[in-house]
Amino acid sequence: MTMKVILAKHAGFCFGVKRATQLAFEAADRDGDIYTLGPIIHSPQVVQRLEEMGVKPVEDVSEVENGGTVIIRSHGVAAEELDAAIRANLEVVDATCPFVKKAQEHVAKLSDEGYDIVVVGDAVHPEVQGIVSYATGRVYVVSSGKDVERLPRMSKIGVVAQTTQSFEHLHDVVTACLSRGGETRVYNTICDATAVRQEEAKALAGQVDCMIVIGGFNSANTKRLTQICKELLPRTHHIETACQVDPAWFDGVEKVGITAGASTPKWLIDEVTNRISAIHKDKIS
Amino acid sequence: MTMKVILAKHAGFCFGVKRATQLAFEAADRDGDIYTLGPIIHSPQVVQRLEEMGVKPVEDVSEVENGGTVIIRSHGVAAEELDAAIRANLEVVDATCPFVKKAQEHVAKLSDEGYDIVVVGDAVHPEVQGIVSYATGRVYVVSSGKDVERLPRMSKIGVVAQTTQSFEHLHDVVTACLSRGGETRVYNTICDATAVRQEEAKALAGQVDCMIVIGGFNSANTKRLTQICKELLPRTHHIETACQVDPAWFDGVEKVGITAGASTPKWLIDEVTNRISAIHKDKIS
Repeated sequence: MTMKVILAKHAGFCFGVKRATQLAFEAADRDGDIYTLGPIIHSPQVVQRLEEMGVKPVEDVSEVENGGTVIIRSHGVAAEELDAAIRANLEVVDATCPFVKKAQEHVAKLSDEGYDIVVVGDAVHPEVQGIVSYATGRVYVVSSGKDVERLPRMSKIGVVAQTTQSFEHLHDVVTACLSRGGETRVYNTICDATAVRQEEAKALAGQVDCMIVIGGFNSANTKRLTQICKELLPRTHHIETACQVDPAWFDGVEKVGITAGASTPKWLIDEVTNRISAIHKDKIS
Repeated sequence: MTMKVILAKHAGFCFGVKRATQLAFEAADRDGDIYTLGPIIHSPQVVQRLEEMGVKPVEDVSEVENGGTVIIRSHGVAAEELDAAIRANLEVVDATCPFVKKAQEHVAKLSDEGYDIVVVGDAVHPEVQGIVSYATGRVYVVSSGKDVERLPRMSKIGVVAQTTQSFEHLHDVVTACLSRGGETRVYNTICDATAVRQEEAKALAGQVDCMIVIGGFNSANTKRLTQICKELLPRTHHIETACQVDPAWFDGVEKVGITAGASTPKWLIDEVTNRISAIHKDKIS
């Protein structure tokens, strides 16, 4: 009996991550010292490969040598950090995802026009911390309508969302804002790549016996993808690399589904697919 | 056994109707010809009383005599009609409800700033027709999220609501707008007088044996009030005046609840209450 391996169509890199990674690999070829402010994307393997090419991740602009080039990661950074890099006369390669950039710009503009800002997202996520930093007035991070009820009185509310949030969260928060009266101005900054990837993974998990989700253990969207698949199919495994694949997972399995988070490069997906096929061949030979 | 008559606390005139009626009765005392553009409020009895004082309702500015005074009704009128009255050098008493005025102003401003306008409401209601007329660009009247799905592509959507709409309708429409992406700018122009009156009527209908709802047969909010009460208590009767009260309605009734639409004057409510008490006295004597 042959085991069938099905790879999700939208597994791996989203538009913003692909762009950031390309910019980083291009920058790696430049002369001089190259740095990324935080990990360029949430993939330890990509970060490691860039380090092998001389690109060093640093936590703060002050760690960057004079005349160096600094790459801004796909999640974006705080406005102050970007300013600090520019003030220090560093060469800046801005690899911020254009959708994240839009959210930052909306916050800056709304804040300027006197709106109190509500960001729908996870307060500790670097993307949200970056977005929040563009507010010049009051700004709150919420994850539900319940959170909105605890906020002070506001007459002009500007709402944006972390690009990877679910539409239900945005809608729940906006409904709570509306019920407070006054004006609610919403920019739907959600990127549907996340929703598309999740819907596809759900459909796939429903038709296979085992799911493999590939992506950084530090990647929020990969963890969420794993959780969604696990709810439908307990035989779901989250791995970062091919060597973590356990042959025992495929005992009695007829169909395996594979998907990957937004920051998982194609070569990692290929390695995993190849290893699973090899395991299967070993078993039937 | 005594029959208890309970009058709802928020029965009758809302803020905007009270103001419009006062302005109309004050204007009735002026010299010269006085007109209202359409009925001043949806109460045939109030309109009749004003007519007895010489205030004539007309359908169009062209029917107003030179030098006359024209009163703009609480629901507001179309921008063109107001302009026509001003151009004709008529004396204008603007009795538009300040909450309706706000909705008109928001539409004018949003339209000016390039937003496509979505009005949550009833397309044939004069208030909505007035609000809509303030848009200089594209404008659509919708009553549900489903209606929004049929609208053309829009990247900047400005949303306002007919002041008497339910919050659920607004929230349903906004959710549909959000899911189309881009920007959704909402002014919650719903006046909570309607919701408060309805909630109170519901509570009252739940504790009495018979409900009387007083208000114009042409009043949308009174009809809705009757419908809400009837769902809870089939012994609900919608009347305009005391003479429509049928003694048979109170056979075996221990408690009667009374409420009234936003355009029902206090004197009509008093007449009904007195008549019901008199019927009861007749019965027990």
